[in-house]
Amino acid sequence: MISAAPKPILYSYFRSSCSWRVRIALALKGISYDLVPVNLLKDGGQQFSAEFKAVNPMQQVPALKIDGITLSQSLAIIHYLEDTHPNPRLLPQDPKKRAQVRMIADHIVSGIQPLQNLNVLKQIGEKKTEWAQNCIASGFQALEQILQHTAGQYCVGDEVSMADLCLVPQVSNAERFKVDMGLYPTITRINKALLELEAFRVSHPSRQPDTPAELRA
Amino acid sequence: MISAAPKPILYSYFRSSCSWRVRIALALKGISYDLVPVNLLKDGGQQFSAEFKAVNPMQQVPALKIDGITLSQSLAIIHYLEDTHPNPRLLPQDPKKRAQVRMIADHIVSGIQPLQNLNVLKQIGEKKTEWAQNCIASGFQALEQILQHTAGQYCVGDEVSMADLCLVPQVSNAERFKVDMGLYPTITRINKALLELEAFRVSHPSRQPDTPAELRA
Repeated sequence: MISAAPKPILYSYFRSSCSWRVRIALALKGISYDLVPVNLLKDGGQQFSAEFKAVNPMQQVPALKIDGITLSQSLAIIHYLEDTHPNPRLLPQDPKKRAQVRMIADHIVSGIQPLQNLNVLKQIGEKKTEWAQNCIASGFQALEQILQHTAGQYCVGDEVSMADLCLVPQVSNAERFKVDMGLYPTITRINKALLELEAFRVSHPSRQPDTPAELRA
Repeated sequence: MISAAPKPILYSYFRSSCSWRVRIALALKGISYDLVPVNLLKDGGQQFSAEFKAVNPMQQVPALKIDGITLSQSLAIIHYLEDTHPNPRLLPQDPKKRAQVRMIADHIVSGIQPLQNLNVLKQIGEKKTEWAQNCIASGFQALEQILQHTAGQYCVGDEVSMADLCLVPQVSNAERFKVDMGLYPTITRINKALLELEAFRVSHPSRQPDTPAELRA
């Protein structure tokens, strides 16, 4: 008798942009999962609890328990899903286009998001909104230019890719910090097109099990 | 008549840890290249010049001109080299081990390095050394724990991987900021083993064309 593999468990916070990236990937690939909410604000941050540290020593969401291992770091998780569930693919087949996808994803994941995440902003203190706005604006200026060369309907050509999974949550952060999105017409256009897709809608922060009632869509 | 493809051009700064990652990959894969130094301190930062902005709108090193395109973001570049020059491989064949490699690489590339890079430290001002030490120490605490589960001779098992390409330059930054490495015996052991390999030696910041005379090995 073969027992069914247990469902993957995603540790997630509704408003974490890094968690959202993984939720989109899971939705696009049609992988059903159980979600365990980790509230990054409550009790001084539930990610710092001993219980969660045993799950993920990095004390961050997202983390994904899958196939007997626990992974963290959103892009590493998404690459694992791509390796094990290749359809629909989130990386183009052409190596140059793959490189463009990864360049845009890494630009957001390493070059923008870490500088405006909750932990950093706590340490910045009263100038935190201005700090976050500057980090995002300077990253988006470069991104807007790069997209001139790579974009079709989406970030790279007309297929949804890892770059798009990073773009939408970052634009959501930008809006939360009231960054003037009028300066980035290409980013805005692509973001709007992506938000019409089902996988981006069901994974949206306004529709999570841990979304507070007042923020629900 | 077929003309030879031009050599790749790496835009690099001797002390940039992100540039070093790519120099190691190029050395491991035996790809010969021309190096154009970009001094991140001189003239207010040569990466901000109009000339360099035309090369890389992200205004960062490394950037690699290769096969008719210009790539930036160190891991995107390394993945491109992996796709186009698969030997020796820098990602294990087993998807779970690949995921561990990427998790460690992303932890360093997104979770540690961006918080202690030159641009951020400039904005932090007088507390910058303490800030950098804290970012690195907290990232290394998590990494030390993760390596207990993944390491062999190197970060993941006994083959050099993308994770190792990120580890060594980050340890070098830690030493520069006088982080107490005695707390991280596994990181220290792996770093030492890697620094004995030729590819890590030739790519070392002390042996670059733009290394100042007083810092040369």
